[in-house]
Amino acid sequence: MPSQFDPPSGTRDFLAAEHGKREWATGVLRGVFSSYGFEPLQTPAFERVDVLLGKYGDEADQLVFKILRRGEREASGEADLALRYDMTVPLARVAAAYGGQLPTPYKRYVIGPVWRADRPGRGRFREFTQCDVDTLGSVSPLADAEIICTLHDAIAALGVQDFTILANSRKVLAGLLEVFGVPEDLGPGVLTSLDKLDKMSPREVIDELAGRGLGEPAAADLVGTMTADDAVERIRTALKPSDTAMAGLEELDQVLALAGSQVPAGRIAFTPRMVRGLSYYTGPIWEVVSPDVPGSLGGGGRYDYLIEQLGGPDVPATGTSVGVERLLMLIPDDITGQRRRVDVAVTVLGADLAEASFALAAQARAAHLRAAVYLGSSGKIGRQLKWASDTGARWCLIYGNAEREAGTVTVRDLDSAEQEAVPAGEVGAYLAGRN
Amino acid sequence: MPSQFDPPSGTRDFLAAEHGKREWATGVLRGVFSSYGFEPLQTPAFERVDVLLGKYGDEADQLVFKILRRGEREASGEADLALRYDMTVPLARVAAAYGGQLPTPYKRYVIGPVWRADRPGRGRFREFTQCDVDTLGSVSPLADAEIICTLHDAIAALGVQDFTILANSRKVLAGLLEVFGVPEDLGPGVLTSLDKLDKMSPREVIDELAGRGLGEPAAADLVGTMTADDAVERIRTALKPSDTAMAGLEELDQVLALAGSQVPAGRIAFTPRMVRGLSYYTGPIWEVVSPDVPGSLGGGGRYDYLIEQLGGPDVPATGTSVGVERLLMLIPDDITGQRRRVDVAVTVLGADLAEASFALAAQARAAHLRAAVYLGSSGKIGRQLKWASDTGARWCLIYGNAEREAGTVTVRDLDSAEQEAVPAGEVGAYLAGRN
Repeated sequence: MPSQFDPPSGTRDFLAAEHGKREWATGVLRGVFSSYGFEPLQTPAFERVDVLLGKYGDEADQLVFKILRRGEREASGEADLALRYDMTVPLARVAAAYGGQLPTPYKRYVIGPVWRADRPGRGRFREFTQCDVDTLGSVSPLADAEIICTLHDAIAALGVQDFTILANSRKVLAGLLEVFGVPEDLGPGVLTSLDKLDKMSPREVIDELAGRGLGEPAAADLVGTMTADDAVERIRTALKPSDTAMAGLEELDQVLALAGSQVPAGRIAFTPRMVRGLSYYTGPIWEVVSPDVPGSLGGGGRYDYLIEQLGGPDVPATGTSVGVERLLMLIPDDITGQRRRVDVAVTVLGADLAEASFALAAQARAAHLRAAVYLGSSGKIGRQLKWASDTGARWCLIYGNAEREAGTVTVRDLDSAEQEAVPAGEVGAYLAGRN
Repeated sequence: MPSQFDPPSGTRDFLAAEHGKREWATGVLRGVFSSYGFEPLQTPAFERVDVLLGKYGDEADQLVFKILRRGEREASGEADLALRYDMTVPLARVAAAYGGQLPTPYKRYVIGPVWRADRPGRGRFREFTQCDVDTLGSVSPLADAEIICTLHDAIAALGVQDFTILANSRKVLAGLLEVFGVPEDLGPGVLTSLDKLDKMSPREVIDELAGRGLGEPAAADLVGTMTADDAVERIRTALKPSDTAMAGLEELDQVLALAGSQVPAGRIAFTPRMVRGLSYYTGPIWEVVSPDVPGSLGGGGRYDYLIEQLGGPDVPATGTSVGVERLLMLIPDDITGQRRRVDVAVTVLGADLAEASFALAAQARAAHLRAAVYLGSSGKIGRQLKWASDTGARWCLIYGNAEREAGTVTVRDLDSAEQEAVPAGEVGAYLAGRN
């Protein structure tokens, strides 16, 4: 039941363990992206409303968190700013603002939160991490292949083993509609229906296509071709009459050959029925699926006109999203192996011993161990050992009057419960040696 | 001049170099904080308005970015959410929400953006990074000393060498006002005036105090004591009649002794005229100053009642802010030494050579080098070498028809312009060996 202390609906607090896992994953992703020469970009959480709204249609605009004007203008009830909805609109603005300062092509990655006022639900959040990798300014199939390989390596580096990259091309799909005689005005609707072939039966999709005004025989023929076991061969044959479609097919084949040469055999496959919902793609498209998780682990494609449509310069572009939130669900919680809050817990058995205990913790830190002193009010050794154990520390350093007189520290191994007296000045070296 | 493509007023875009520096600094800070056993926390960018507003007074509320209700309720012009203004209100909420799940004491750090609708200006932003380190649930002077040492180590780890930690105590200041006969209702105003002793002359402060209703002789006596060369000794003597003040002094001395034992000599000093503006401090307070930068590099203190006042549980607390934005101004831009966007740039001298070039880049990545292939449309070697040089790469791999026939790759060292023919399959090993 939600309480007044819960974070706002659809958002989450990340305490240490979850935060550690997310930081680990972010670090892994950064490493992969920079190995391909993508550079980081960070833009503000909010943009001016005129930059943000009207870019993806009314439905998307409804999901934007708008920020009220301030001061005297607050009473107007108007918004002048809005939280970013995705990372592509800011990318378009940045491309326009810093054009000359950016390298050509501009290869950038971004990992950060975006906000959408969606109905919160299982695995659907209003604040979530978006991770995008894009190349602006290249029409080369190498750019698409490089993005696909980056996506592949990112998922593999996070430890996911069982996944497949489905690839297709918007040009091939457009050619298919052409050779199957789909009227141009029905095109977008037909693609939307075909996109459902992974959730609905071919019969249901045929009925939906017929409902859209496509003749039943053409619909059955189209769906039959796309879902056939030999769909790829059938399509290659069917497309031959269309030069545009054949050019799209050749481009896709180049991308498949390049990316396929760098990923394990069978990982990437031309998948005619994979359509992807979004309308702005113009060339190769791809999507990563895994039997371990519903939905996709990432996807993208070429979108040569979108950056300009979003208010940026007229540059070709290709890019991918990495499904960080879904990938995080597949990563074990103890991935960082950091169940210990500290490595060394130090007792404080009297106000007159505090400075020495404080110095022992510093010795441990100088030996590259994480160390904390007891900050509670109990002078009892039992209570302090309980605290030490609660921190998950490997070692507890006990320094009482007896130790002070002997010039030693009792080093207790909290895993084995064995303990040893170590000269006070040598504790750092001792711990470093045992670590 | 601001253009339509600039980020919103008071916010910034961080391109690769600046982003790299910020990531580097964040990593260094995380390392220091966890070495002391502080754990990370991340809360949402926004909170419900009732959680956020009315916590620091009207002036602060004016600076809060409020988020409009959505859907049908948008037209009401009302806000239900607001961007976080600081990290302490979210901390209080988290302490209330997860009390039992959190360790005792709860030692946490946070590094992230906060938003304030301040008038933007030189070094003052509407979106800026806040970095806080706090311990909840301990009244021990060790907790304060630990926070001071953490702050010290953080600043030193970022490479800043010349800085001083000024320390004082709210209890000492309260005792001073008491023994100098300042009426209780004038207390807060008198402290506000005394806080200006670093910017105004003693005479001006005395006049301001007189204007507040403090008798001129008492004002002169108070300011004279606080700014005297032997201020510390005078205050120790003056406070003797007050038991409360002496207890505060003893506590401050413990903190100074503990922290002083772990930082270089002279780095921390009891500074009677250092008051800190904020009213919620209850015990030791501190501030870091450096001759290299105006203002402070960080500061904090004990605030035993604030967490409850902010809606959290009744727990004692102590903590510090680290002035990340100011510290970043002191850090050289090339701190990460990453002027190269990639280590290896690979030519693509023909469509039929693309797959081999793509594989060469993969070989370099397997050798832990960052590598990119040429994505432009020119087939000319001169243009491609220009691109390679622009990336800042150390090496360019040239693979043309001659190399294909010879089964080699021409490895060009872009720093020395020397080049060598290397068997194609051995390029990764060759580069790894030269790196």
